[in-house]
Amino acid sequence: MTLESILNAESVAIVGASKDPTKRGLQTIRSLVDEKYEGRIYPVNPKEKKILGFTCYKKVSDIEGDVDIALIALPARMVPGILEDCGKKGVKGAVILAVGFGETNAEGKALEQEVLAVAQKNNIRLIGPNTSGMMNVASGLNLVGLQDTPKGSIGLLSQSGNMALTLITEARLKSLKGFSYYIGVGNEADIKFHEYLNFFRNDPKTNVVLIYVEGMREGRKFLQQAYQTSLKKPIVLLKSGHSLTGQRSAGSHTGALAGISEVARSAFKRAGIIVIEKSDQLFPVAETLASLPPLKKNQVAILADGGGHATIAADILTDLSIEVPVLSEKTRAKLEKILPQAASISNPVDIAGGADADPTIFADCAEILLKDKNIHGLLVVGLFGGYGIRFSKSLGLMEEDAAHRLGKLVVKTKKPIIVHSLYGSEKSHPLHLLRYYNIPVYDSLDVASKCMGALGEYESYLSSYHAKASFVLNRGVKRNPKALKIINRAGKEGRSVLLEHEAKQLMAFHGAPVTRDHLAKTAAEAVEFAKQITGAVALKIVSPDILHKSDAQGVRVNLRTEKEIRKAYADILKNAKAYKPDADIRGILVSPMAERGTEVIIGTKIDDQFGPVIMFGIGGIMVEVLKDVAFRVLPITYNSAKKMIREIHSYPILRGIRGTPPCDETALRRLLLTCSEVIESYEEIREMDLNPVIVHQKGISVVDARIIL
Amino acid sequence: MTLESILNAESVAIVGASKDPTKRGLQTIRSLVDEKYEGRIYPVNPKEKKILGFTCYKKVSDIEGDVDIALIALPARMVPGILEDCGKKGVKGAVILAVGFGETNAEGKALEQEVLAVAQKNNIRLIGPNTSGMMNVASGLNLVGLQDTPKGSIGLLSQSGNMALTLITEARLKSLKGFSYYIGVGNEADIKFHEYLNFFRNDPKTNVVLIYVEGMREGRKFLQQAYQTSLKKPIVLLKSGHSLTGQRSAGSHTGALAGISEVARSAFKRAGIIVIEKSDQLFPVAETLASLPPLKKNQVAILADGGGHATIAADILTDLSIEVPVLSEKTRAKLEKILPQAASISNPVDIAGGADADPTIFADCAEILLKDKNIHGLLVVGLFGGYGIRFSKSLGLMEEDAAHRLGKLVVKTKKPIIVHSLYGSEKSHPLHLLRYYNIPVYDSLDVASKCMGALGEYESYLSSYHAKASFVLNRGVKRNPKALKIINRAGKEGRSVLLEHEAKQLMAFHGAPVTRDHLAKTAAEAVEFAKQITGAVALKIVSPDILHKSDAQGVRVNLRTEKEIRKAYADILKNAKAYKPDADIRGILVSPMAERGTEVIIGTKIDDQFGPVIMFGIGGIMVEVLKDVAFRVLPITYNSAKKMIREIHSYPILRGIRGTPPCDETALRRLLLTCSEVIESYEEIREMDLNPVIVHQKGISVVDARIIL
Repeated sequence: MTLESILNAESVAIVGASKDPTKRGLQTIRSLVDEKYEGRIYPVNPKEKKILGFTCYKKVSDIEGDVDIALIALPARMVPGILEDCGKKGVKGAVILAVGFGETNAEGKALEQEVLAVAQKNNIRLIGPNTSGMMNVASGLNLVGLQDTPKGSIGLLSQSGNMALTLITEARLKSLKGFSYYIGVGNEADIKFHEYLNFFRNDPKTNVVLIYVEGMREGRKFLQQAYQTSLKKPIVLLKSGHSLTGQRSAGSHTGALAGISEVARSAFKRAGIIVIEKSDQLFPVAETLASLPPLKKNQVAILADGGGHATIAADILTDLSIEVPVLSEKTRAKLEKILPQAASISNPVDIAGGADADPTIFADCAEILLKDKNIHGLLVVGLFGGYGIRFSKSLGLMEEDAAHRLGKLVVKTKKPIIVHSLYGSEKSHPLHLLRYYNIPVYDSLDVASKCMGALGEYESYLSSYHAKASFVLNRGVKRNPKALKIINRAGKEGRSVLLEHEAKQLMAFHGAPVTRDHLAKTAAEAVEFAKQITGAVALKIVSPDILHKSDAQGVRVNLRTEKEIRKAYADILKNAKAYKPDADIRGILVSPMAERGTEVIIGTKIDDQFGPVIMFGIGGIMVEVLKDVAFRVLPITYNSAKKMIREIHSYPILRGIRGTPPCDETALRRLLLTCSEVIESYEEIREMDLNPVIVHQKGISVVDARIIL
Repeated sequence: MTLESILNAESVAIVGASKDPTKRGLQTIRSLVDEKYEGRIYPVNPKEKKILGFTCYKKVSDIEGDVDIALIALPARMVPGILEDCGKKGVKGAVILAVGFGETNAEGKALEQEVLAVAQKNNIRLIGPNTSGMMNVASGLNLVGLQDTPKGSIGLLSQSGNMALTLITEARLKSLKGFSYYIGVGNEADIKFHEYLNFFRNDPKTNVVLIYVEGMREGRKFLQQAYQTSLKKPIVLLKSGHSLTGQRSAGSHTGALAGISEVARSAFKRAGIIVIEKSDQLFPVAETLASLPPLKKNQVAILADGGGHATIAADILTDLSIEVPVLSEKTRAKLEKILPQAASISNPVDIAGGADADPTIFADCAEILLKDKNIHGLLVVGLFGGYGIRFSKSLGLMEEDAAHRLGKLVVKTKKPIIVHSLYGSEKSHPLHLLRYYNIPVYDSLDVASKCMGALGEYESYLSSYHAKASFVLNRGVKRNPKALKIINRAGKEGRSVLLEHEAKQLMAFHGAPVTRDHLAKTAAEAVEFAKQITGAVALKIVSPDILHKSDAQGVRVNLRTEKEIRKAYADILKNAKAYKPDADIRGILVSPMAERGTEVIIGTKIDDQFGPVIMFGIGGIMVEVLKDVAFRVLPITYNSAKKMIREIHSYPILRGIRGTPPCDETALRRLLLTCSEVIESYEEIREMDLNPVIVHQKGISVVDARIIL
């Protein structure tokens, strides 16, 4: 069942219809009538005959006509029975408002499972439970009870009814834009974020998707849908709850460093989502993206009347990676001709009182600026729209003229204009005109500048988009039979950990440059193996019972002579037995000492929301003390491996500092991709920890590896 | 001349008075009349007889009565002559509007100097030039031409007329609070930020100072005044221009790392200033601080109707170091009694629709929450003030009742309440009532939460205030005669750099634990000195012509035998001559090898705006690659030395990681204080660079030092 027929339902049953004006059962019917819903409306209540003139039914299955969707406005415990009845009628979808399900306790969770089972049995798709409802703004299918939602092209998904109300109120009070749909996702018992997103991608009425989320059930599927959607239309998202999630306990050393927020943020951005940090920027950014042509290149002009606003805007744009470039000589000459002497004709352009007698100069300047080939957008800051208020009404008429011209300029040049006005909250004619022409107007400099930044961010994403980062795990295709053998052997032995040499072998089957090790069962074997190795060797204990080899004093390095090796062998065995007397010791690994280079750490784990993720950082202090790490949801591409390496603060160490040669970044990238391939191929692997990996001037060595199944 | 008599002038001359309504010369007279200024008004214009009924004078000196202040609304070139004439009349102060002074070019700078000289000769204090004017809101002395400035207790200092207009407009449209004074500081030719601040500190009409600044001329004096002021009343400040100032070139290695913004931010905070990063938070924070009792402890409750707003607010408060603590059992029991079952009675408290029938429940909850001894403030988020709008008018009356009770609750409990309402921009009665009771209302969650954060920040400052961080340089009191000799010797030799051993000696005179070095003139001397040292030694070239010893291969370390020392001595000499054939070589320094420990770097330089500043960081990668450094304006206290050490990200390294023992933090603190004392004592020192300093488990060693005069 596609969501289309539910979200565009042509008939709706209101189960729990009522005559009480404080009840959703009446409010909803009123809303449907008020919003001129053209579909059929069927109140359902065994105790009433008619509500607001509509015939009332005892139960859904009594209704004669088809019923596309049912709004269930009754307590949780009644929902399963109602759904059974809906099933008889062939209802396609149901919106469940009630609380008291999975968000409460075990009992509620069980009830939610029961409801889901009944729905699935009856082929009914569920919105909610614990939702404020859904609304098809264009068709008037308003199952929320919220009036006056402005129509428009923003598709709204929210995990909080209050945030939806906030955004809708903001749109109504401060904007001419509005919404195509609102869906309160509630507990996501059945339909989840990613399915709604899929719907919005294909919905012709929606051109921007706006999301408020606290947590999601199917993070990876969401990313997959987001990745595909953002190539067609922008997604603007605010994720809250970082302070409440707290620290996640994780078994492996590297996993313990993972902050879920960091993973989510980088994953969202990689899926092309515009991630918003401040709630008061959420609607404006969506509005801007729904209104304006793209910012083709990250270069804009700032046009101001006076210095302060321009300085602040320049700061913010710079922080958002938007350039405010020097204007061409030609542009400056043209500006010089029309502006007063005190004006600044660099960028930002400060007209310095040049509008006091005639604000149409804003349009003159805008026309000149947008002709400059290095200028791809314009941010007007200051008083525009308020000259008529502040000085004289005649100036207001000139401002209207300027507003017309600015509006047409956007159409003609296909370059975006955003206006900050300190009179933005007053509804002056010129500002209204700007909005009419799809030019967003804000009374906050921060918001206006952020919106320009978002235009730039979205366009940068589209232009740097790389076809393979689709978040789809191509499970199993590269499974290597020998590697599977290793995994299976551990399984048979009841081990959840691969031994170091096993983990390395597995990695080597996929082309990872692991150190060439030998497992010695006796000291003599160790000496023999050492002879085959050029240079010094390291000896390491191998035991499924000793995970932290150093803690057990199970490692000796830089061994050169037979005597040293024999002594080390004996010492390690003794230490291991002292550490864990009944440890199952499989032997001692003889490894060559790796060439010099920079130590890095690579780890993977399974994130609850997003599935397999990878972490990378420079070994030692950088990871342990400074938490200077980069995360990516797997699989990664060559490109994202590159970005990952370069986004850590300590990246210059890899590039070479204080005269040390640069490390082999290409080899490191390849290794990250190998890890990605391995995790993709073997669902069995839960965690991987390559620590240390030494990146040489040429090449790379995996010195130690651990894999947890 | 104190500013008081100027800012409270009882008579004003308008020089350049006019009949043209577009001219400041008319607008200002109108404003004075409109605002009911009770002082005398004297238009000055040789061509007019009367303006708006006021007798017009040919020149200021023609006026019969006293003239406290003159507004000069004429072009720059005319200003010196007018000031001369003002001098004859005994005018105390002048506001110079004209542009074309120091902000333009050399000619303008010269004119500004001339104007200043004329003013000083005539005992006239100047506001501006290049200012939008000044305004005493209470007395109606409005020399800005801005109408409708709301009266209140916020003293406004701005370097941008536009930002002042923005803040005043915001106050007028969105608040019931207002201003005591507005002063456009302009070019600060005469009166500077710190003098205005001093005025505001003592002004009984002002209880919060609000500052917009792009750059200041006398940063240190400003800090001194700010330090004293913020103990009496809060200062709220936005500094913009960080993207334009760009990278400051600095001579010394450590100086080059200094970002002026970082220095400014840390200095402002240390002076107790609430530093604002987002322009749309500037007025609200000032308004809140002007309205509410202090947040005695950083613990608040969040009261919401629905989850989303509460989650976002909790995130923001947590980020601002405001705790949202668990409520006491008693409090929870009381809440449980009055709230519906679906409500959350943890903190945040979610009344979950409990207000749908009666919003006075907000007041009930607030009363319960503010009785909890772990709750020192309350943030109400959501729809309050909009129930009457959204649902039914009768709810609006209940909201008014609740607003009265909330207002009285603040008075009674002396605990602050801030309200976020998505209806904040609609002027509903309940919201108006809240504002009337000094409870700030915002329609942005970010802004409302930030305001609570600011209350906490200010109170934390007051409670942690340490008497000695007053930014006053106690110049010269600790000058050591022997140290002066070293400085003077360099001066006589025309050197601007102290040699390593000289710099160390100077530091040692102030108690710094420098390595005990000897300057050897021959290899034999070097060998002799080395014998007096336990353990290995280092040899380093000493030459005023070789600043970077390593570059010249002028350092050899870990020398143990006589042979090694002799060879090193010869090598260093040879290398130095190869590096710079005509270098003036003073000898070779024989130093003990420092014990093991953690390398740190300490540097000082003279900042253009703030004077002497000190920098501290952990040597090597932490400073060079990660720029992980802390700055302070000198002098510092023992307390600020401690904070400085602990604020770098890599601080855990000093505390000891991976089983290494902790470093001697006390010794490090003492050394920072010694540096502070040295810089305070010798104005001659421009830069100091201690690199490396080794912090041991016990004690600390300054291994290399450089001082630039």
